[in-house]
Amino acid sequence: MPERRKSATNPDLLATALFDVAAESGLENASVREVAKRADVSIGAVQHHFSTKDEMLTFALRTLAERMLSRLTQSPAGTDPHVVLFQALSQLLPLDEQRTREAHVLAAFAIRAVTSESLAEIRRTMLFTIRTGICAVLIGIRLPEAETRAALLLATVDGLALDAIGNPGMYPPHYLEYALESQIKLTLHDMEIPDALVSRG
Amino acid sequence: MPERRKSATNPDLLATALFDVAAESGLENASVREVAKRADVSIGAVQHHFSTKDEMLTFALRTLAERMLSRLTQSPAGTDPHVVLFQALSQLLPLDEQRTREAHVLAAFAIRAVTSESLAEIRRTMLFTIRTGICAVLIGIRLPEAETRAALLLATVDGLALDAIGNPGMYPPHYLEYALESQIKLTLHDMEIPDALVSRG
Repeated sequence: MPERRKSATNPDLLATALFDVAAESGLENASVREVAKRADVSIGAVQHHFSTKDEMLTFALRTLAERMLSRLTQSPAGTDPHVVLFQALSQLLPLDEQRTREAHVLAAFAIRAVTSESLAEIRRTMLFTIRTGICAVLIGIRLPEAETRAALLLATVDGLALDAIGNPGMYPPHYLEYALESQIKLTLHDMEIPDALVSRG
Repeated sequence: MPERRKSATNPDLLATALFDVAAESGLENASVREVAKRADVSIGAVQHHFSTKDEMLTFALRTLAERMLSRLTQSPAGTDPHVVLFQALSQLLPLDEQRTREAHVLAAFAIRAVTSESLAEIRRTMLFTIRTGICAVLIGIRLPEAETRAALLLATVDGLALDAIGNPGMYPPHYLEYALESQIKLTLHDMEIPDALVSRG
């Protein structure tokens, strides 16, 4: 019913519509047409804000990244590094419906970033921001190899999310929490890790 | 030039064509039409083997999973668990052009598995097979919590691959190798990890 459709909208509503389409039927279905339909606006209204699909995807990823990062950086209660890292990084795991949708769409954007420099730029900034935040916690307790430990902890969270989103039965929420706790404990264990383990001849 | 196109082909060639399209322009572009074009066959020849796109994707993922798993399970030289795990799991990291393409396409299939049960089934089997293989190595040296350590090690590799494919500059091959070595060292360190670190009240 075209007469119900608004001829103008704001980009945040379009980003929400894109997120919903991507979470429910995959990022590959988040076309200008589908986003317009979901937001109940005309195709022209979407094109008014975004002249290309890539521009629309870029705005949607930036909106999602900002939302996730703002939760991640909320100051948690206490200063125990275990608790600080757990509270922050559990925001990235599919522990409830909202985070499951976010983990799915964020991972889909990460794949799409391979063929889109503007998406890759946002993804890179997001990874760098989270790694830097983890690193600050580790440096605060004078752990050696803080950069490497931070990259590994973030990779573990990203990998758990990726492994879990298609297999919720194999990775239920309590298991994911336990896995995150375990990796944090491995990360915070004061051992040297820099020497090469495998000779490359 | 339709006259050059073969009217029949074999499904392995179509799986290769699908992989090439997905590696170069994204899994979302691996349509029946694009796969036919890449394989230089008619659309009808593709439809002869696969009655739906999902069937074609499922066959292509199974082919990719078998190829990657067969490399992973090749018996490496020596029995040092560090070396065994490194040689096997480095097959999953984007350390060269072939593995970069594989990591990209495999991760894209993992996302797509969220909305396709037949893809999810293959993904589940692949994760289970690799986790079981890692677990066997850890149990062989009597490490406690072998299941959890195995899941974390696999998640770290999957996460490193995901973080790296869109950001090759941030995760160059020598860094990925060093990160994998470091996580293996954390994994093989004989420490208890089972107690809950964060109380959930």
